[in-house]
Amino acid sequence: MDKAQQDALKKAAGIEAAKLIEDGMVAGLGTGSTVRFLVDELGRRVQEEGLKFTGVTTSRRTQEQAESYGITIVDVDEVDHIDVTIDGADEVDKNFDGIKGGGAALLWEKIVATNSDRIVWIVDESKVVDTIGKFPLPVEVIPFGAGQVVKKFEARGYKPVLRLDAEGQPVRTDENNYVVDLHLEKIEHPQALAEDLITTVGVVEHGLFLNMVDTVIVGDPNGPRVMTNSNK
Amino acid sequence: MDKAQQDALKKAAGIEAAKLIEDGMVAGLGTGSTVRFLVDELGRRVQEEGLKFTGVTTSRRTQEQAESYGITIVDVDEVDHIDVTIDGADEVDKNFDGIKGGGAALLWEKIVATNSDRIVWIVDESKVVDTIGKFPLPVEVIPFGAGQVVKKFEARGYKPVLRLDAEGQPVRTDENNYVVDLHLEKIEHPQALAEDLITTVGVVEHGLFLNMVDTVIVGDPNGPRVMTNSNK
Repeated sequence: MDKAQQDALKKAAGIEAAKLIEDGMVAGLGTGSTVRFLVDELGRRVQEEGLKFTGVTTSRRTQEQAESYGITIVDVDEVDHIDVTIDGADEVDKNFDGIKGGGAALLWEKIVATNSDRIVWIVDESKVVDTIGKFPLPVEVIPFGAGQVVKKFEARGYKPVLRLDAEGQPVRTDENNYVVDLHLEKIEHPQALAEDLITTVGVVEHGLFLNMVDTVIVGDPNGPRVMTNSNK
Repeated sequence: MDKAQQDALKKAAGIEAAKLIEDGMVAGLGTGSTVRFLVDELGRRVQEEGLKFTGVTTSRRTQEQAESYGITIVDVDEVDHIDVTIDGADEVDKNFDGIKGGGAALLWEKIVATNSDRIVWIVDESKVVDTIGKFPLPVEVIPFGAGQVVKKFEARGYKPVLRLDAEGQPVRTDENNYVVDLHLEKIEHPQALAEDLITTVGVVEHGLFLNMVDTVIVGDPNGPRVMTNSNK
């Protein structure tokens, strides 16, 4: 599948998910290439159909895009609850365990997700996998002592790589932290890994989103396909 | 006990602990009013006795004080290991479970502590308690969504209070996060509480230091008293 085909699938999933947003809702808006198509479609509905909703964004990038369409964006602390959050994912398996954070926004994404009544992910079919872990697992780490955390991850066999930008400097998240990507290939015991990571001093958050999503909309060449999580 | 008496006990504990630092060591230096006396004494030894050691500090405040004495301070990522870290504590019980973070430096303190071969706390006798929790437990929280975290803590009965500065603005840690103090009065199950806090999305770290300390030097009116942790 080439990039144009993949983009067409992402766009189809984004347009399908946009139908979930109704007048008066508070909607969490994720981050990433698939979410861009969602926000474009929501912007079109706001401008052409007069849709009125309030957004809570998970990154400065998404906030800028949404505000460019005149969508009202408020802080997560200004709302009582979020009706639904629509976000992308880097991988998701049949147990609805997923990996997020390829775009370095996992912390705000997880904060918005945990304050949402319903979570929907939009992905192209390449993101649906048997076992998560082929996609390097992002871990957000405090800069102070980050090198020591990387050494500990190495000793545990996690194959960590500090994420660098084009200039060779550590990538900074919206909270000014570092991202360490773990090249695990296969994550057989995601719960145990999540517990190990979150209790490591210096780790702020990790990209394992385990059984958090309610609905996955998969951009498929035959049209968007919906996976519903009945075990949440 | 008035403040002058308490300061005298803190100073005695600080001077006693300074004896643990030898030529060539890498020493972690904590934060707080008792550690100030320690650093003063180490500065004296550097200047009068020619003591040579390398320090790793847990706050910008301590770094500035140490450097004013000509003590060499390096980043925690520049050392292979830390021989001993000497820090204060807000409370410690007979199980060597403690609360730290009254000075808002708990994150860097915990990062330095977890990279230390040996941990020593210096306290005045008022800090030694039967059950921890009378001292409000500091929790470092990501500013994004901090209000939602406070609401969750309220729902769990943790009596959270966002720490404010003299101008009524949220106190910022050295990593630019907020501090929420939990007014629990008594912490009967510290391990369970620690797990609950660290797995709350938005929490960076908490002030429970459970069975981490090796030695506690207590400033006592009869002279410094040493508590040794044999279960670590």
